[in-house]
Amino acid sequence: MAGRSIEDMSIAFIGAGNLATNLAKALYRKGFRIVQVYSRTKESAQGLAQTVEAAYTTELQAVTKEAQLYIVSLKDAAFVELLPQIVSGKENALWVHTAGSIPMNIWQGHVARYGVLYPMQTFSKQREVDFGQIPCFVESNSEEDVQLLKDIASALSEKVYEASSEQRKSLHLAAVFTCNFTNHMYVLAAELLKKYGLPFEAMLPLIDETARKVHELEPLAAQTGPAVRYDENVIDEHLRMLADEPQMLELYREISENIHRLAIR
Amino acid sequence: MAGRSIEDMSIAFIGAGNLATNLAKALYRKGFRIVQVYSRTKESAQGLAQTVEAAYTTELQAVTKEAQLYIVSLKDAAFVELLPQIVSGKENALWVHTAGSIPMNIWQGHVARYGVLYPMQTFSKQREVDFGQIPCFVESNSEEDVQLLKDIASALSEKVYEASSEQRKSLHLAAVFTCNFTNHMYVLAAELLKKYGLPFEAMLPLIDETARKVHELEPLAAQTGPAVRYDENVIDEHLRMLADEPQMLELYREISENIHRLAIR
Repeated sequence: MAGRSIEDMSIAFIGAGNLATNLAKALYRKGFRIVQVYSRTKESAQGLAQTVEAAYTTELQAVTKEAQLYIVSLKDAAFVELLPQIVSGKENALWVHTAGSIPMNIWQGHVARYGVLYPMQTFSKQREVDFGQIPCFVESNSEEDVQLLKDIASALSEKVYEASSEQRKSLHLAAVFTCNFTNHMYVLAAELLKKYGLPFEAMLPLIDETARKVHELEPLAAQTGPAVRYDENVIDEHLRMLADEPQMLELYREISENIHRLAIR
Repeated sequence: MAGRSIEDMSIAFIGAGNLATNLAKALYRKGFRIVQVYSRTKESAQGLAQTVEAAYTTELQAVTKEAQLYIVSLKDAAFVELLPQIVSGKENALWVHTAGSIPMNIWQGHVARYGVLYPMQTFSKQREVDFGQIPCFVESNSEEDVQLLKDIASALSEKVYEASSEQRKSLHLAAVFTCNFTNHMYVLAAELLKKYGLPFEAMLPLIDETARKVHELEPLAAQTGPAVRYDENVIDEHLRMLADEPQMLELYREISENIHRLAIR
Protein backbone atom coordinates (compact mmCIF):
# COMPACT_ATOMS: atom_id res chain seq x y z
CA MET A 1 0.00 0.00 0.00
CA ALA A 2 3.11 2.17 -0.47
CA GLY A 3 2.44 5.82 0.33
CA ARG A 4 -1.29 5.37 0.65
CA SER A 5 -3.35 4.73 3.76
CA ILE A 6 -5.16 1.43 4.21
CA GLU A 7 -8.47 3.30 4.18
CA ASP A 8 -7.99 3.80 0.43
CA MET A 9 -8.36 0.09 -0.23
CA SER A 10 -11.48 -0.68 -2.18
CA ILE A 11 -13.59 -3.23 -0.33
CA ALA A 12 -16.49 -5.35 -1.56
CA PHE A 13 -18.85 -7.17 0.79
CA ILE A 14 -20.26 -10.55 -0.20
CA GLY A 15 -23.16 -10.92 2.18
CA ALA A 16 -25.18 -8.28 4.03
CA GLY A 17 -26.32 -10.08 7.14
CA ASN A 18 -25.93 -9.10 10.80
CA LEU A 19 -22.15 -9.39 10.91
CA ALA A 20 -21.52 -7.87 7.47
CA THR A 21 -23.82 -4.96 8.28
CA ASN A 22 -22.03 -4.12 11.50
CA LEU A 23 -18.54 -4.62 10.06
CA ALA A 24 -19.27 -2.60 6.91
CA LYS A 25 -20.72 0.27 8.94
CA ALA A 26 -17.73 0.29 11.26
CA LEU A 27 -15.30 0.34 8.32
CA TYR A 28 -17.30 3.04 6.56
CA ARG A 29 -17.30 5.18 9.68
CA LYS A 30 -13.51 4.87 9.90
CA GLY A 31 -13.16 6.16 6.35
CA PHE A 32 -12.75 2.90 4.46
CA ARG A 33 -14.01 2.83 0.90
CA ILE A 34 -16.70 0.21 0.38
CA VAL A 35 -17.39 -0.07 -3.32
CA GLN A 36 -20.08 -2.72 -3.52
CA VAL A 37 -22.37 -4.94 -1.48
CA TYR A 38 -23.69 -8.26 -2.75
CA SER A 39 -26.64 -10.02 -1.16
CA ARG A 40 -29.10 -12.60 -2.46
CA THR A 41 -31.98 -10.30 -1.54
CA LYS A 42 -32.36 -6.79 -2.89
CA GLU A 43 -33.63 -5.50 0.42
CA SER A 44 -30.45 -6.48 2.26
CA ALA A 45 -28.04 -5.53 -0.52
CA GLN A 46 -29.58 -2.14 -1.13
CA GLY A 47 -30.14 -1.41 2.56
CA LEU A 48 -26.51 -1.88 3.51
CA ALA A 49 -25.17 -0.34 0.27
CA GLN A 50 -27.05 2.89 0.90
CA THR A 51 -25.78 3.13 4.46
CA VAL A 52 -22.15 2.79 3.40
CA GLU A 53 -22.45 4.73 0.10
CA ALA A 54 -21.69 1.70 -2.06
CA ALA A 55 -23.17 0.13 -5.16
CA TYR A 56 -25.09 -3.11 -4.76
CA THR A 57 -25.97 -6.24 -6.66
CA THR A 58 -28.00 -9.39 -6.13
CA GLU A 59 -26.13 -11.29 -8.87
CA LEU A 60 -22.86 -13.03 -8.06
CA GLN A 61 -21.71 -12.60 -11.68
CA ALA A 62 -22.16 -8.85 -11.30
CA VAL A 63 -19.82 -8.55 -8.34
CA THR A 64 -17.08 -6.06 -9.18
CA LYS A 65 -13.71 -7.47 -10.25
CA GLU A 66 -11.95 -4.26 -9.20
CA ALA A 67 -12.00 -4.50 -5.39
CA GLN A 68 -8.72 -5.02 -3.55
CA LEU A 69 -10.30 -6.74 -0.57
CA TYR A 70 -13.36 -9.00 -0.62
CA ILE A 71 -15.04 -9.68 2.70
CA VAL A 72 -17.26 -12.75 2.55
CA SER A 73 -19.85 -13.07 5.27
CA LEU A 74 -22.38 -15.72 4.32
CA LYS A 75 -24.06 -18.58 6.10
CA ASP A 76 -21.38 -21.30 6.25
CA ALA A 77 -23.16 -23.83 4.03
CA ALA A 78 -23.87 -21.26 1.28
CA PHE A 79 -20.29 -20.05 1.39
CA VAL A 80 -18.79 -23.51 0.89
CA GLU A 81 -21.13 -24.23 -1.99
CA LEU A 82 -20.75 -20.90 -3.78
CA LEU A 83 -17.03 -20.35 -3.23
CA PRO A 84 -15.83 -21.19 -6.78
CA GLN A 85 -18.46 -18.90 -8.29
CA ILE A 86 -17.77 -16.13 -5.79
CA VAL A 87 -14.05 -15.83 -6.50
CA SER A 88 -14.27 -16.40 -10.26
CA GLY A 89 -12.33 -13.75 -12.17
CA LYS A 90 -11.12 -12.05 -8.99
CA GLU A 91 -8.48 -14.56 -7.91
CA ASN A 92 -5.76 -11.98 -7.41
CA ALA A 93 -7.46 -9.83 -4.78
CA LEU A 94 -7.22 -10.46 -1.04
CA TRP A 95 -10.09 -12.62 0.18
CA VAL A 96 -11.24 -12.98 3.79
CA HIS A 97 -14.19 -14.59 5.44
CA THR A 98 -15.53 -13.60 8.85
CA ALA A 99 -16.65 -16.93 10.28
CA GLY A 100 -15.41 -18.39 13.56
CA SER A 101 -16.16 -21.88 12.39
CA ILE A 102 -14.62 -22.06 8.90
CA PRO A 103 -10.93 -22.91 8.59
CA MET A 104 -8.73 -20.58 6.57
CA ASN A 105 -7.68 -23.33 4.16
CA ILE A 106 -11.13 -23.35 2.60
CA TRP A 107 -9.61 -20.70 0.30
CA GLN A 108 -6.68 -22.88 -0.68
CA GLY A 109 -6.56 -23.68 -4.39
CA HIS A 110 -9.17 -21.03 -5.14
CA VAL A 111 -7.33 -17.75 -4.60
CA ALA A 112 -3.73 -16.69 -4.07
CA ARG A 113 -4.10 -14.27 -1.13
CA TYR A 114 -6.52 -15.14 1.60
CA GLY A 115 -7.32 -15.10 5.26
CA VAL A 116 -9.90 -14.54 7.97
CA LEU A 117 -11.13 -11.53 9.91
CA TYR A 118 -13.33 -12.79 12.74
CA PRO A 119 -14.90 -10.19 15.02
CA MET A 120 -16.16 -12.23 17.98
CA GLN A 121 -19.42 -10.56 18.92
CA THR A 122 -23.19 -10.99 18.61
CA PHE A 123 -24.42 -8.73 15.84
CA SER A 124 -27.97 -7.72 14.97
CA LYS A 125 -28.85 -5.29 12.24
CA GLN A 126 -31.18 -3.42 14.57
CA ARG A 127 -28.46 -2.64 17.07
CA GLU A 128 -25.21 -0.78 16.61
CA VAL A 129 -22.26 -2.00 18.64
CA ASP A 130 -19.08 -0.25 19.68
CA PHE A 131 -16.43 -2.03 17.63
CA GLY A 132 -13.64 -0.62 19.79
CA GLN A 133 -13.91 -3.38 22.39
CA ILE A 134 -14.62 -6.33 20.10
CA PRO A 135 -11.87 -8.96 19.98
CA CYS A 136 -10.90 -9.41 16.32
CA PHE A 137 -8.99 -12.53 15.30
CA VAL A 138 -7.07 -12.46 12.03
CA GLU A 139 -5.25 -15.09 10.03
CA SER A 140 -3.70 -15.19 6.56
CA ASN A 141 -1.56 -17.38 4.33
CA SER A 142 1.08 -14.64 4.13
CA GLU A 143 2.85 -12.63 6.82
CA GLU A 144 2.28 -9.49 4.82
CA ASP A 145 -1.47 -9.98 4.69
CA VAL A 146 -1.59 -10.89 8.39
CA GLN A 147 -0.12 -7.44 8.98
CA LEU A 148 -2.51 -5.80 6.55
CA LEU A 149 -5.53 -7.46 8.21
CA LYS A 150 -4.19 -6.50 11.63
CA ASP A 151 -3.91 -2.90 10.46
CA ILE A 152 -7.46 -2.90 9.12
CA ALA A 153 -8.86 -4.53 12.26
CA SER A 154 -6.85 -2.17 14.46
CA ALA A 155 -8.54 0.78 12.79
CA LEU A 156 -11.78 -0.60 14.27
CA SER A 157 -10.83 -2.30 17.51
CA GLU A 158 -8.26 -2.09 20.28
CA LYS A 159 -8.29 -5.87 20.61
CA VAL A 160 -6.73 -7.47 17.55
CA TYR A 161 -5.06 -10.86 17.75
CA GLU A 162 -3.59 -13.36 15.33
CA ALA A 163 -5.28 -16.74 15.84
CA SER A 164 -5.04 -20.06 14.03
CA SER A 165 -8.09 -21.73 12.50
CA GLU A 166 -7.99 -24.25 15.34
CA GLN A 167 -8.03 -21.53 18.00
CA ARG A 168 -10.76 -19.61 16.22
CA LYS A 169 -12.93 -22.71 16.02
CA SER A 170 -12.53 -23.25 19.76
CA LEU A 171 -13.34 -19.63 20.52
CA HIS A 172 -16.42 -19.87 18.34
CA LEU A 173 -17.71 -22.97 20.14
CA ALA A 174 -17.19 -21.29 23.51
CA ALA A 175 -18.92 -18.19 22.14
CA VAL A 176 -21.99 -20.24 21.22
CA PHE A 177 -22.34 -21.25 24.87
CA THR A 178 -21.47 -17.78 26.19
CA CYS A 179 -23.74 -15.83 23.92
CA ASN A 180 -26.26 -17.84 21.89
CA PHE A 181 -27.14 -20.30 24.64
CA THR A 182 -27.15 -17.56 27.26
CA ASN A 183 -29.55 -15.57 25.12
CA HIS A 184 -31.73 -18.66 24.86
CA MET A 185 -31.95 -18.71 28.67
CA TYR A 186 -33.20 -15.11 28.45
CA VAL A 187 -35.73 -16.26 25.83
CA LEU A 188 -37.04 -19.00 28.11
CA ALA A 189 -37.30 -16.58 31.03
CA ALA A 190 -39.18 -14.14 28.79
CA GLU A 191 -41.59 -16.92 27.76
CA LEU A 192 -42.26 -17.83 31.38
CA LEU A 193 -42.79 -14.24 32.47
CA LYS A 194 -45.15 -13.61 29.55
CA LYS A 195 -47.17 -16.63 30.61
CA TYR A 196 -47.32 -15.29 34.17
CA GLY A 197 -48.13 -11.73 33.06
CA LEU A 198 -44.90 -10.31 34.51
CA PRO A 199 -42.55 -7.88 32.72
CA PHE A 200 -39.21 -9.12 31.35
CA GLU A 201 -37.66 -5.78 32.41
CA ALA A 202 -37.72 -7.06 35.99
CA MET A 203 -34.89 -9.42 34.99
CA LEU A 204 -32.50 -6.77 33.67
CA PRO A 205 -30.65 -5.99 36.92
CA LEU A 206 -30.13 -9.72 37.40
CA ILE A 207 -28.92 -10.20 33.83
CA ASP A 208 -26.49 -7.30 34.21
CA GLU A 209 -25.09 -8.48 37.53
CA THR A 210 -24.72 -12.07 36.25
CA ALA A 211 -22.60 -10.70 33.40
CA ARG A 212 -20.62 -8.25 35.54
CA LYS A 213 -19.91 -10.88 38.16
CA VAL A 214 -17.71 -13.01 35.89
CA HIS A 215 -15.43 -10.04 35.30
CA GLU A 216 -14.33 -10.58 38.90
CA LEU A 217 -15.11 -14.17 39.86
CA GLU A 218 -14.53 -17.35 37.90
CA PRO A 219 -17.89 -18.53 36.56
CA LEU A 220 -17.77 -21.65 38.73
CA ALA A 221 -17.26 -19.52 41.87
CA ALA A 222 -20.00 -17.13 40.77
CA GLN A 223 -22.67 -19.86 40.60
CA THR A 224 -25.68 -19.40 42.88
CA GLY A 225 -29.24 -20.75 43.03
CA PRO A 226 -31.10 -23.91 43.97
CA ALA A 227 -29.04 -26.32 41.83
CA VAL A 228 -25.64 -25.42 43.27
CA ARG A 229 -27.10 -25.51 46.81
CA TYR A 230 -28.86 -28.71 45.79
CA ASP A 231 -32.07 -27.36 47.27
CA GLU A 232 -34.34 -30.24 46.29
CA ASN A 233 -37.54 -28.60 47.60
CA VAL A 234 -37.09 -25.71 45.21
CA ILE A 235 -35.94 -27.84 42.28
CA ASP A 236 -38.92 -30.18 42.64
CA GLU A 237 -41.34 -27.26 42.82
CA HIS A 238 -39.80 -25.73 39.69
CA LEU A 239 -40.12 -29.03 37.83
CA ARG A 240 -43.80 -29.13 38.81
CA MET A 241 -44.25 -25.59 37.51
CA LEU A 242 -42.74 -26.65 34.16
CA ALA A 243 -44.90 -29.76 33.79
CA ASP A 244 -46.69 -28.36 30.71
CA GLU A 245 -43.44 -27.20 29.05
CA PRO A 246 -41.65 -30.47 28.27
CA GLN A 247 -38.59 -28.92 26.56
CA MET A 248 -38.07 -26.38 29.31
CA LEU A 249 -38.54 -29.05 31.94
CA GLU A 250 -35.94 -31.27 30.31
CA LEU A 251 -33.45 -28.39 30.06
CA TYR A 252 -34.13 -27.38 33.67
CA ARG A 253 -33.41 -30.90 34.82
CA GLU A 254 -30.24 -31.34 32.78
CA ILE A 255 -28.71 -27.97 33.52
CA SER A 256 -29.46 -28.35 37.23
CA GLU A 257 -27.82 -31.77 37.30
CA ASN A 258 -24.80 -30.35 35.48
CA ILE A 259 -24.51 -27.43 37.90
CA HIS A 260 -24.64 -29.78 40.85
CA ARG A 261 -22.18 -32.22 39.29
CA LEU A 262 -19.60 -29.51 38.65
CA ALA A 263 -20.10 -28.00 42.12
CA ILE A 264 -19.25 -31.24 43.96
CA ARG A 265 -16.50 -32.30 41.54
CA MET B 1 -42.64 3.12 65.10
CA ALA B 2 -44.23 6.37 66.29
CA GLY B 3 -41.72 9.21 66.31
CA ARG B 4 -38.77 6.95 65.64
CA SER B 5 -37.09 6.15 62.38
CA ILE B 6 -37.23 2.64 60.98
CA GLU B 7 -33.45 2.42 61.21
CA ASP B 8 -33.86 2.10 64.99
CA MET B 9 -35.55 -1.28 64.64
CA SER B 10 -33.43 -4.06 66.06
CA ILE B 11 -32.85 -6.74 63.47
CA ALA B 12 -31.59 -10.30 63.88
CA PHE B 13 -30.39 -12.40 60.95
CA ILE B 14 -31.04 -16.14 60.92
CA GLY B 15 -28.58 -17.35 58.31
CA ALA B 16 -25.35 -15.77 57.08
CA GLY B 17 -25.12 -17.02 53.51
CA ASN B 18 -24.67 -15.08 50.28
CA LEU B 19 -28.01 -13.29 50.38
CA ALA B 20 -27.99 -12.64 54.14
CA THR B 21 -24.45 -11.26 53.94
CA ASN B 22 -25.30 -8.80 51.19
CA LEU B 23 -28.62 -7.77 52.72
CA ALA B 24 -27.17 -7.32 56.21
CA LYS B 25 -24.29 -5.22 54.90
CA ALA B 26 -26.66 -3.04 52.89
CA LEU B 27 -28.90 -2.48 55.92
CA TYR B 28 -25.91 -1.81 58.16
CA ARG B 29 -24.56 0.75 55.72
CA LYS B 30 -27.92 2.54 55.71
CA GLY B 31 -27.80 2.84 59.50
CA PHE B 32 -30.00 -0.08 60.50
CA ARG B 33 -29.22 -1.74 63.81
CA ILE B 34 -28.35 -5.40 63.42
CA VAL B 35 -28.17 -6.94 66.85
CA GLN B 36 -27.31 -10.56 66.18
CA VAL B 37 -26.38 -13.03 63.45
CA TYR B 38 -27.09 -16.75 63.70
CA SER B 39 -25.40 -19.31 61.50
CA ARG B 40 -24.75 -23.02 61.89
CA THR B 41 -21.04 -22.44 61.38
CA LYS B 42 -18.97 -20.13 63.57
CA GLU B 43 -17.00 -18.88 60.60
CA SER B 44 -20.07 -17.54 58.82
CA ALA B 45 -21.81 -16.23 61.94
CA GLN B 46 -18.76 -14.44 63.27
CA GLY B 47 -17.66 -13.19 59.87
CA LEU B 48 -20.90 -11.42 59.10
CA ALA B 49 -21.47 -10.31 62.74
CA GLN B 50 -18.11 -8.52 62.81
CA THR B 51 -18.83 -6.74 59.55
CA VAL B 52 -22.15 -5.36 60.77
CA GLU B 53 -21.12 -4.83 64.42
CA ALA B 54 -23.50 -7.44 65.77
CA ALA B 55 -23.30 -10.31 68.24
CA TYR B 56 -23.33 -13.82 66.87
CA THR B 57 -24.37 -17.32 67.84
CA THR B 58 -24.28 -20.80 66.35
CA GLU B 59 -27.05 -22.09 68.63
CA LEU B 60 -30.67 -21.56 67.65
CA GLN B 61 -31.67 -21.54 71.34
CA ALA B 62 -29.29 -18.64 71.92
CA VAL B 63 -30.91 -16.40 69.32
CA THR B 64 -32.00 -13.16 70.99
CA LYS B 65 -35.67 -12.82 71.90
CA GLU B 66 -35.41 -9.02 71.86
CA ALA B 67 -35.22 -8.25 68.14
CA GLN B 68 -38.15 -6.47 66.49
CA LEU B 69 -37.49 -7.93 63.06
CA TYR B 70 -36.10 -11.37 62.26
CA ILE B 71 -34.78 -11.95 58.76
CA VAL B 72 -34.53 -15.64 57.95
CA SER B 73 -32.29 -16.54 55.04
CA LEU B 74 -31.61 -20.27 55.08
CA LYS B 75 -31.57 -23.02 52.49
CA ASP B 76 -35.25 -23.75 51.86
CA ALA B 77 -35.23 -27.32 53.22
CA ALA B 78 -33.47 -26.33 56.45
CA PHE B 79 -35.87 -23.43 56.94
CA VAL B 80 -38.98 -25.58 56.63
CA GLU B 81 -37.59 -28.15 59.05
CA LEU B 82 -36.30 -25.70 61.66
CA LEU B 83 -39.13 -23.16 61.56
CA PRO B 84 -40.83 -24.14 64.86
CA GLN B 85 -37.50 -24.05 66.70
CA ILE B 86 -36.46 -20.80 65.06
CA VAL B 87 -39.50 -18.80 66.11
CA SER B 88 -39.88 -20.35 69.57
CA GLY B 89 -40.30 -17.69 72.25
CA LYS B 90 -40.20 -14.84 69.72
CA GLU B 91 -43.66 -15.23 68.23
CA ASN B 92 -44.59 -11.56 68.61
CA ALA B 93 -41.82 -10.04 66.52
CA LEU B 94 -42.09 -9.45 62.78
CA TRP B 95 -40.70 -12.38 60.81
CA VAL B 96 -39.66 -12.34 57.17
CA HIS B 97 -37.89 -14.77 54.93
CA THR B 98 -35.98 -13.79 51.80
CA ALA B 99 -36.69 -16.71 49.45
CA GLY B 100 -38.27 -16.38 46.05
CA SER B 101 -39.54 -19.91 46.20
CA ILE B 102 -41.19 -20.15 49.64
CA PRO B 103 -44.80 -18.98 50.00
CA MET B 104 -45.58 -16.47 52.70
CA ASN B 105 -48.07 -18.76 54.39
CA ILE B 106 -45.29 -20.99 55.63
CA TRP B 107 -45.33 -18.66 58.66
CA GLN B 108 -49.04 -19.12 59.28
CA GLY B 109 -49.84 -20.67 62.65
CA HIS B 110 -46.28 -20.11 63.84
CA VAL B 111 -46.09 -16.34 64.33
CA ALA B 112 -48.55 -13.45 64.35
CA ARG B 113 -46.75 -10.93 62.13
CA TYR B 114 -44.94 -12.19 59.08
CA GLY B 115 -43.99 -11.63 55.51
CA VAL B 116 -41.31 -11.81 52.83
CA LEU B 117 -38.55 -9.51 51.65
CA TYR B 118 -37.13 -10.96 48.42
CA PRO B 119 -34.27 -9.08 46.77
CA MET B 120 -34.06 -10.63 43.31
CA GLN B 121 -30.36 -10.75 42.58
CA THR B 122 -27.40 -13.16 42.49
CA PHE B 123 -25.37 -12.68 45.65
CA SER B 124 -21.91 -13.95 46.45
CA LYS B 125 -20.08 -13.16 49.66
CA GLN B 126 -16.94 -12.26 47.72
CA ARG B 127 -18.66 -9.55 45.72
CA GLU B 128 -20.48 -6.44 46.89
CA VAL B 129 -23.46 -5.37 44.87
CA ASP B 130 -25.16 -2.02 44.54
CA PHE B 131 -28.49 -2.60 46.25
CA GLY B 132 -29.97 0.57 44.76
CA GLN B 133 -31.02 -1.13 41.52
CA ILE B 134 -32.11 -4.49 42.91
CA PRO B 135 -35.84 -5.20 42.55
CA CYS B 136 -37.16 -6.01 46.03
CA PHE B 137 -40.49 -7.81 46.36
CA VAL B 138 -42.33 -7.58 49.67
CA GLU B 139 -45.41 -9.29 51.07
CA SER B 140 -47.00 -9.46 54.51
CA ASN B 141 -50.14 -10.70 56.25
CA SER B 142 -50.96 -7.13 57.36
CA GLU B 143 -51.20 -3.89 55.43
CA GLU B 144 -49.21 -2.15 58.12
CA ASP B 145 -46.31 -4.56 57.83
CA VAL B 146 -46.40 -4.38 54.03
CA GLN B 147 -45.80 -0.66 54.47
CA LEU B 148 -43.09 -1.23 57.05
CA LEU B 149 -41.29 -3.73 54.78
CA LYS B 150 -41.66 -1.36 51.84
CA ASP B 151 -40.09 1.42 53.91
CA ILE B 152 -37.19 -0.80 54.92
CA ALA B 153 -36.63 -2.03 51.37
CA SER B 154 -36.94 1.51 50.02
CA ALA B 155 -34.07 2.57 52.25
CA LEU B 156 -31.94 0.15 50.22
CA SER B 157 -33.41 0.10 46.72
CA GLU B 158 -35.28 2.34 44.31
CA LYS B 159 -37.21 -0.65 43.02
CA VAL B 160 -39.60 -1.93 45.67
CA TYR B 161 -42.78 -3.76 44.73
CA GLU B 162 -45.51 -5.64 46.53
CA ALA B 163 -45.82 -9.15 45.04
CA SER B 164 -47.89 -12.18 45.93
CA SER B 165 -46.30 -15.53 46.74
CA GLU B 166 -47.47 -16.79 43.37
CA GLN B 167 -45.83 -13.91 41.51
CA ARG B 168 -42.64 -14.24 43.51
CA LYS B 169 -42.44 -17.95 42.73
CA SER B 170 -42.79 -17.20 39.01
CA LEU B 171 -40.14 -14.49 39.15
CA HIS B 172 -37.82 -16.88 40.94
CA LEU B 173 -38.22 -19.60 38.32
CA ALA B 174 -37.52 -17.09 35.55
CA ALA B 175 -34.53 -15.84 37.54
CA VAL B 176 -33.09 -19.36 37.67
CA PHE B 177 -33.04 -19.41 33.86
CA THR B 178 -31.86 -15.81 33.55
CA CYS B 179 -29.08 -16.01 36.07
CA ASN B 180 -28.16 -19.48 37.31
CA PHE B 181 -28.48 -21.24 33.96
CA THR B 182 -26.84 -18.34 32.14
CA ASN B 183 -23.92 -18.55 34.53
CA HIS B 184 -23.72 -22.27 33.83
CA MET B 185 -23.27 -21.44 30.13
CA TYR B 186 -20.34 -19.23 31.18
CA VAL B 187 -19.00 -22.17 33.22
CA LEU B 188 -19.16 -24.50 30.22
CA ALA B 189 -17.44 -21.92 28.01
CA ALA B 190 -14.74 -21.52 30.66
CA GLU B 191 -14.24 -25.30 30.75
CA LEU B 192 -13.88 -25.44 26.98
CA LEU B 193 -11.46 -22.54 26.82
CA LYS B 194 -9.35 -24.02 29.62
CA LYS B 195 -9.15 -27.26 27.67
CA TYR B 196 -8.04 -25.34 24.57
CA GLY B 197 -5.59 -23.16 26.50
CA LEU B 198 -7.43 -19.93 25.72
CA PRO B 199 -8.30 -17.19 28.24
CA PHE B 200 -11.88 -16.80 29.49
CA GLU B 201 -11.36 -13.01 29.43
CA ALA B 202 -11.71 -13.14 25.65
CA MET B 203 -15.43 -13.83 26.21
CA LEU B 204 -16.17 -10.76 28.35
CA PRO B 205 -17.07 -8.31 25.55
CA LEU B 206 -19.44 -10.94 24.17
CA ILE B 207 -20.98 -11.62 27.58
CA ASP B 208 -21.49 -7.90 28.15
CA GLU B 209 -23.06 -7.26 24.75
CA THR B 210 -25.35 -10.29 25.08
CA ALA B 211 -26.64 -8.82 28.35
CA ARG B 212 -26.87 -5.23 27.06
CA LYS B 213 -28.67 -6.31 23.91
CA VAL B 214 -31.81 -7.47 25.71
CA HIS B 215 -32.22 -4.01 27.22
CA GLU B 216 -33.18 -2.95 23.69
CA LEU B 217 -34.32 -6.01 21.78
CA GLU B 218 -36.63 -8.78 22.88
CA PRO B 219 -34.51 -11.86 23.63
CA LEU B 220 -36.09 -13.76 20.74
CA ALA B 221 -35.16 -10.96 18.31
CA ALA B 222 -31.66 -10.75 19.78
CA GLN B 223 -30.85 -14.41 19.04
CA THR B 224 -27.88 -15.03 16.74
CA GLY B 225 -25.56 -17.96 16.00
CA PRO B 226 -25.59 -21.24 14.11
CA ALA B 227 -28.76 -22.68 15.72
CA VAL B 228 -31.06 -19.79 14.81
CA ARG B 229 -29.59 -19.71 11.27
CA TYR B 230 -29.86 -23.49 11.29
CA ASP B 231 -26.32 -23.70 9.98
CA GLU B 232 -25.98 -27.49 10.01
CA ASN B 233 -22.32 -27.51 8.94
CA VAL B 234 -21.36 -25.54 12.03
CA ILE B 235 -23.68 -27.42 14.37
CA ASP B 236 -22.34 -30.80 13.20
CA GLU B 237 -18.76 -29.66 13.60
CA HIS B 238 -19.50 -28.41 17.13
CA LEU B 239 -21.10 -31.73 18.04
CA ARG B 240 -17.96 -33.51 16.80
CA MET B 241 -15.82 -31.20 18.95
CA LEU B 242 -17.91 -32.12 22.00
CA ALA B 243 -17.74 -35.88 21.39
CA ASP B 244 -15.73 -36.48 24.59
CA GLU B 245 -17.99 -34.26 26.73
CA PRO B 246 -21.29 -36.18 26.76
CA GLN B 247 -23.19 -33.76 29.05
CA MET B 248 -22.08 -30.71 27.09
CA LEU B 249 -22.89 -32.45 23.83
CA GLU B 250 -26.39 -33.30 25.02
CA LEU B 251 -26.99 -29.72 26.18
CA TYR B 252 -25.62 -28.33 22.93
CA ARG B 253 -28.00 -30.50 20.96
CA GLU B 254 -31.06 -29.73 23.06
CA ILE B 255 -30.53 -26.01 23.32
CA SER B 256 -29.81 -25.73 19.59
CA GLU B 257 -33.00 -27.63 18.76
CA ASN B 258 -34.94 -25.34 21.11
CA ILE B 259 -33.47 -22.21 19.55
CA HIS B 260 -34.38 -23.41 16.10
CA ARG B 261 -37.87 -24.51 17.14
CA LEU B 262 -38.67 -21.10 18.66
CA ALA B 263 -37.20 -19.25 15.66
CA ILE B 264 -39.49 -20.95 13.14
CA ARG B 265 -42.56 -20.96 15.40
